[in-house]
Amino acid sequence: MRKIAILTSGGDAPGMNSAVAAIAKAAKAANLEPYVVLEGYKGLYHNQIVKADSMNLNFYASQGGTAIYSARFPEFKNKEVRDVAIANLKKHDIEALVVIGGDGSYMGAQLLHEAGVKTIGLPGTIDNDIASSDFTIGYDTALNTIVEAIDKIRDTATSHQRIMIVEVMGNNCGDLALYSGLATGAEIIATSDYKPSVEEIVAKAKELTAQPGRRSVIVVVSEKCYNLKELEKAIEETTGWATRSNPLNHIQRGGRPTAQERIYASLMGIKAVEYLVAGKSGLAIGILNNDVVGTPILEALSMKNASKEKSVQKAIKFNKLNQVG
Amino acid sequence: MRKIAILTSGGDAPGMNSAVAAIAKAAKAANLEPYVVLEGYKGLYHNQIVKADSMNLNFYASQGGTAIYSARFPEFKNKEVRDVAIANLKKHDIEALVVIGGDGSYMGAQLLHEAGVKTIGLPGTIDNDIASSDFTIGYDTALNTIVEAIDKIRDTATSHQRIMIVEVMGNNCGDLALYSGLATGAEIIATSDYKPSVEEIVAKAKELTAQPGRRSVIVVVSEKCYNLKELEKAIEETTGWATRSNPLNHIQRGGRPTAQERIYASLMGIKAVEYLVAGKSGLAIGILNNDVVGTPILEALSMKNASKEKSVQKAIKFNKLNQVG
Amino acid sequence: MRKIAILTSGGDAPGMNSAVAAIAKAAKAANLEPYVVLEGYKGLYHNQIVKADSMNLNFYASQGGTAIYSARFPEFKNKEVRDVAIANLKKHDIEALVVIGGDGSYMGAQLLHEAGVKTIGLPGTIDNDIASSDFTIGYDTALNTIVEAIDKIRDTATSHQRIMIVEVMGNNCGDLALYSGLATGAEIIATSDYKPSVEEIVAKAKELTAQPGRRSVIVVVSEKCYNLKELEKAIEETTGWATRSNPLNHIQRGGRPTAQERIYASLMGIKAVEYLVAGKSGLAIGILNNDVVGTPILEALSMKNASKEKSVQKAIKFNKLNQVG
Amino acid sequence: MRKIAILTSGGDAPGMNSAVAAIAKAAKAANLEPYVVLEGYKGLYHNQIVKADSMNLNFYASQGGTAIYSARFPEFKNKEVRDVAIANLKKHDIEALVVIGGDGSYMGAQLLHEAGVKTIGLPGTIDNDIASSDFTIGYDTALNTIVEAIDKIRDTATSHQRIMIVEVMGNNCGDLALYSGLATGAEIIATSDYKPSVEEIVAKAKELTAQPGRRSVIVVVSEKCYNLKELEKAIEETTGWATRSNPLNHIQRGGRPTAQERIYASLMGIKAVEYLVAGKSGLAIGILNNDVVGTPILEALSMKNASKEKSVQKAIKFNKLNQVG
Repeated sequence: MRKIAILTSGGDAPGMNSAVAAIAKAAKAANLEPYVVLEGYKGLYHNQIVKADSMNLNFYASQGGTAIYSARFPEFKNKEVRDVAIANLKKHDIEALVVIGGDGSYMGAQLLHEAGVKTIGLPGTIDNDIASSDFTIGYDTALNTIVEAIDKIRDTATSHQRIMIVEVMGNNCGDLALYSGLATGAEIIATSDYKPSVEEIVAKAKELTAQPGRRSVIVVVSEKCYNLKELEKAIEETTGWATRSNPLNHIQRGGRPTAQERIYASLMGIKAVEYLVAGKSGLAIGILNNDVVGTPILEALSMKNASKEKSVQKAIKFNKLNQVG
Repeated sequence: MRKIAILTSGGDAPGMNSAVAAIAKAAKAANLEPYVVLEGYKGLYHNQIVKADSMNLNFYASQGGTAIYSARFPEFKNKEVRDVAIANLKKHDIEALVVIGGDGSYMGAQLLHEAGVKTIGLPGTIDNDIASSDFTIGYDTALNTIVEAIDKIRDTATSHQRIMIVEVMGNNCGDLALYSGLATGAEIIATSDYKPSVEEIVAKAKELTAQPGRRSVIVVVSEKCYNLKELEKAIEETTGWATRSNPLNHIQRGGRPTAQERIYASLMGIKAVEYLVAGKSGLAIGILNNDVVGTPILEALSMKNASKEKSVQKAIKFNKLNQVG
Repeated sequence: MRKIAILTSGGDAPGMNSAVAAIAKAAKAANLEPYVVLEGYKGLYHNQIVKADSMNLNFYASQGGTAIYSARFPEFKNKEVRDVAIANLKKHDIEALVVIGGDGSYMGAQLLHEAGVKTIGLPGTIDNDIASSDFTIGYDTALNTIVEAIDKIRDTATSHQRIMIVEVMGNNCGDLALYSGLATGAEIIATSDYKPSVEEIVAKAKELTAQPGRRSVIVVVSEKCYNLKELEKAIEETTGWATRSNPLNHIQRGGRPTAQERIYASLMGIKAVEYLVAGKSGLAIGILNNDVVGTPILEALSMKNASKEKSVQKAIKFNKLNQVG
Repeated sequence: MRKIAILTSGGDAPGMNSAVAAIAKAAKAANLEPYVVLEGYKGLYHNQIVKADSMNLNFYASQGGTAIYSARFPEFKNKEVRDVAIANLKKHDIEALVVIGGDGSYMGAQLLHEAGVKTIGLPGTIDNDIASSDFTIGYDTALNTIVEAIDKIRDTATSHQRIMIVEVMGNNCGDLALYSGLATGAEIIATSDYKPSVEEIVAKAKELTAQPGRRSVIVVVSEKCYNLKELEKAIEETTGWATRSNPLNHIQRGGRPTAQERIYASLMGIKAVEYLVAGKSGLAIGILNNDVVGTPILEALSMKNASKEKSVQKAIKFNKLNQVG
């Protein structure tokens, strides 16, 4: 093998650039020539393939987003489309591809692997919803962004004795809500796995506002679980405390990657090149039990995140902890 | 004079704590005994008045929100309510009061001044909508919070070639939108003074997306100017670029005060004590032309912010600058 | 058991406050009454023991340093001193103690455990030098602080085509240097385990400055490994590039804890209370393989960090990666 | 005029990139073609002159350092060297130049102006030592970096009841020390204008450590004023409190520019182009009394910063304020 390519796919996530830089540098260190594909699978189809400039990638390694761009491209499900993509790789004499992205991107990687392209997947998404890795690239940064936002929101809540609802991303994985809630002492945490009714939340809020000395209540909820305006109104009416909802939206996605993000992204990038050098393919890399490991992509795709029950238990535990007066 | 009190009123703003600490310390340095009133005018009425602990206030000087709390209290408009408040101050032998807050708080300060309480006002609000000061306490921090948020949002917009709408606070003052837009190179900036129609914004967005090499468009709008969902839809349909709206909500209000915030807040706090020591009252302190000055509160309340026309000219200038391809 | 106490000992570390808050809240949730000991073992001896105010601790959970203070107290090695400390706990009817600190603090915890006080240890130090936990409380925040500092230093290095030496803490554990170096793409990384000679560093720097397009070289070294001024001079003389050294000193120790810090600190705090409720004692809690576990303190103290050889291999790997042109 | 060029010179400062981007965009908006000169006057001599890519500069506008590089080049004092530089500009048909830098850079700008090149200067340095502007580009960001560093250092000082000395930049201008000291409540502030003897500092520290409840003392000093190790030792010996010194070094120079930095840099950049379009030359732009104005460079160079006496008075005032118990 002489040449490898890298692409990012799915939603951008901080740390993707760190992974790209590490892969390019590790490739060079292994005497491989690294290329980048712009705009994910779409660029692979449109032959947007250029030599990686490691000095430049190094600069981007500390930046948010993905400097090699991403794009939606459902057309990649079609074999004819993939055949064009594979032909493009061949034109450049590129024999291997590292794909950084989420579940959807892994499926494309598997199909390329089955078609004979050496392919390795890296978990890139802020949602931490890829079971083959304890931490996905982007998750730690998003978690910190959320924690900083909630800290700010807590300032206002305490100043005015208010209840603040904060809605965070997660795409069916409750980790961003669960752990940002734990980190900020959020008094009520709700996720798609642990989803109390509006009435239950209101009742709990009522209880909390009755605690002596309390000046604020933070309610962290996962996206798509509640109608924020209705929840806001219901809590305010029952507690008598002014209540405001704050969907954090896209500020959760960008931003410079944290130390841990860059480290995990780099370690997984290094591992990807080691696997390719060893002739391996079809593996999804992850951090499992504090180690960098590879799992067959198909297996990775069928793995479930920690059981719903475990997630529910954590939510109950964290809620109980933070509701102490 | 032997004792003075401090209160914060209206929406919390970063730097309020720095002002409170500076006032308390300056008072002590001038051999006055400082007190704080909890929860603003409401606490003044309810006699929530306690000795200031400068060592503790020093700690809070670097924290967001207001550690002596704020509250809505429209009842303060009633003379009987104010009479109780004034009686409370007398009980404590407190002869002077420094009020940190927005326009509404200034009116209360003026009424106390007219009733014989030595009163000084400090401009505390993130909105920068107090004409007697070029910069209000809270504005610089909010501006930085917004700029950091837009930087993050830009990461995602560029990664995916998207248009992002960001809605910021300002309460009829366009400064947060105008200057965060200038600072982040936002391609379209709209405020209550300079408010293009949805059609005009859409047309401009269309033009921008046609520029070669462009990967993102940021649209910064002041609160209450547009229906975000409608604007989002209109832009997306015409440009064909995915468009998302992001109201920044309450993350703009809290957070540790910036250096400039703490400095202006401290300088104005020091000046407040100097005025009181000099026997003055009924003044609103501000930063004007890089100097710390006092303006009679009544005059301050009747001052207008830079003419609407000036604000419009700036908006046009900044839009033109940032729309360059 | 009805009452437990918490103390922090050794160098302050961000996240200590999060741990204290979690322990206090978990105790209350388990119907235990939590106390805090001020100034570590010194305060235990001087009977500085007060009821924990969970509302207040919650506020401090997001702050750097330790709000219950720490102090050096080598006298605790003396049995008579410890006897007084134990008597103080008895006066308050406190049966159990959670100690948050480094290796030295663990030894004190073990002695208390042997004397019949139920004692649990939590790893609190930025140095990540406690083998019974993959991550110590404070490490992630310090790592981020260092990474942010190096990012800034890189800006200047690149602007002026310079070499910058950055000295970081770690106390014989190379993790802060190793991983901040990996995260920032530092071209040369040296630790107490992997310590090239000045001549070797100079030779490598010379090689790096000859790479086409290179504008900066960052050299990260662990504290106590080199004379910075000499290293600076040697590099500058040979490469001809202006070289500056930057010991990061105490900015590495404070600061608001990161999300991960607060999460690990909270999870370990919760576990400490669970152990005490279960009647256990003499355990050091840690994060091992992404799980929260307890190890007998004596065993923890005798555990070695990842072998010197592993550490050397990592250093070689990261150096090789980052020296790619 | 059809073409203009931009260069950065002297020490890099955050906001330089914002200024460059604003100048390039304002030039385009005025139908001028913008160029950038790499590595300051050195690049001007070596003909490193390239077309400005405004899309790319826009990206760098939010980054620290200077993306068009800077370099020392004392040779520019020689007429023959300048003649080559001027010839290079002519080769590109560039008639005007905007120079962003400090005092030394202004002298070069003046000489070019005298030689017939339309030249405008912008104040770029973190030191705030250019009298023709109340704020230099880089100052606000450096001030915030210092304040954040001192906040962290305060955490450790308070946790351990320590005295911390922090040495900051400023190059004979005390503003960074004065105002970071005010912003952080530093108990002792010393600058080159207000420079108490070691004995006086020690005596003051002794007094402060005797205040009831005090847990920390921060001493902020300007660079080159004291031997840090000696000061550290003298304070520690007399007060009995552990004392540590922390020169902040180069972390003060880099980093993403703050909102205010980008705004002032942009406004000054816009003004530079307006002046050039109006046919003006030989002006140094500054922010004076909250307005963007131009001063003849020669006059700017002869202006003095606020009198030494004013600076001393401020230092005395801030010290007095922060030493209150």
